[in-house]
Amino acid sequence: MTPAAALERIRIVLCQTSHPGNIGAAARAMKTMGLTRLYLVNPKHFPDPEAEARASGAGDVLAQAHVCATLNEALTGTVFASALSARRRDLGPDPEPARQGVQDVLAHVGEGDVALVFGGETSGLTNEEVSRCNRLVTIPVNPDYGSLNLGSAVQVMCYELRMAAFNAMPPLVSQATPFSSPPASHEDIEGFFTHLERIMVTTDFLDPTNPRRLVPKLRRLFGRVELERDEVNILRGILGAVESHLK
Amino acid sequence: MTPAAALERIRIVLCQTSHPGNIGAAARAMKTMGLTRLYLVNPKHFPDPEAEARASGAGDVLAQAHVCATLNEALTGTVFASALSARRRDLGPDPEPARQGVQDVLAHVGEGDVALVFGGETSGLTNEEVSRCNRLVTIPVNPDYGSLNLGSAVQVMCYELRMAAFNAMPPLVSQATPFSSPPASHEDIEGFFTHLERIMVTTDFLDPTNPRRLVPKLRRLFGRVELERDEVNILRGILGAVESHLK
Repeated sequence: MTPAAALERIRIVLCQTSHPGNIGAAARAMKTMGLTRLYLVNPKHFPDPEAEARASGAGDVLAQAHVCATLNEALTGTVFASALSARRRDLGPDPEPARQGVQDVLAHVGEGDVALVFGGETSGLTNEEVSRCNRLVTIPVNPDYGSLNLGSAVQVMCYELRMAAFNAMPPLVSQATPFSSPPASHEDIEGFFTHLERIMVTTDFLDPTNPRRLVPKLRRLFGRVELERDEVNILRGILGAVESHLK
Repeated sequence: MTPAAALERIRIVLCQTSHPGNIGAAARAMKTMGLTRLYLVNPKHFPDPEAEARASGAGDVLAQAHVCATLNEALTGTVFASALSARRRDLGPDPEPARQGVQDVLAHVGEGDVALVFGGETSGLTNEEVSRCNRLVTIPVNPDYGSLNLGSAVQVMCYELRMAAFNAMPPLVSQATPFSSPPASHEDIEGFFTHLERIMVTTDFLDPTNPRRLVPKLRRLFGRVELERDEVNILRGILGAVESHLK
């Protein structure tokens, strides 16, 4: 795969964006670095003239943007996702600096679509949203003032992606063994979690009225391990067998 | 010198900025990466409410900004300057990619103030402005659409500066010999050029009504060599001696 083709595989996902100008700035930032696939989860205002204005010559990126109701929908079809965050999360994966983070993203483009997920301007991503991603990435900033503009954060990440793609493509599949299968898709994994939760509730292990942090902890575990397709099939097989034996 | 102190030595110089929002965005971009010293050469609108709004929590950087009439004034007191440019120049130094470019900037902070110089939104820096700088730096972009927003360009460069400063400080003085002296200041070098030009004109070598590209070529030569203070003194000594012997 050429570096340019690798960059085309990357979705930039913006969640709950408040200011349409930032959507336009993100589109322009993407296009300057060779990225084109913009996904908008529940944007406050879109389409919007302010987005058009700030996009400048990247109106085509805006015109092709996918508007989604949920992050889940935006990640459908992906095999790997990294969440951008300024802060550490108790239950999410440990954050990596941007320069390492883009290596992980590019390492998965040979397997399918990948995503970089950005939160809204005010409060960033929720823990629930972070838990849908495989990695947490942070842009190193001044500890006394780390308030990066959303469009600027997209610019820095897309620049790092381009630099990494053109300088040295990392190996596309790491640690493959004769037993490896392709990575599970986002839908595979969500299907697994739905199935698992249903069984946990059915079995009174999970109380939906008082879930505590059980699901995030499970998501952290399975997110970090980067499930393969065969593995999910096995897990689903187990769940199905359990379910058919429940009262 | 600590990395934080090194970043404090760097001036961000914006020439002929048209949109005050970009000045605010640049101030915010600087502060997120630990830079504070903003110089504005002949801005179209400043101060301006739009600059304040886009600066967000970086109003202190705007409040301390120096407004200058010329690039020469903004560079007074510096020992090294790099010019940002999207395009090659026939007569300027060859452009380096941003990641290398910041190494050169940081390599000189032990000697005095240094500067990164950005042109206006529409046409960038003039050749005359580039010729006042020691290096030409470019941000690698999509060859089909390289239209980086000014605030985004400042963000990428300040990010690279922070990464370079904190990851590994380059040696502060390269290739010092027992004969080395501190680098010449911008004023020293401009004084030399003024002196040299006067003599060239006086001697009919330079026709002010038809200068062709003589001065830019000389500036390229002396900019690239990074003159030291003692060297300028010697050159000025030669020029003075010549001058006193002219009719």
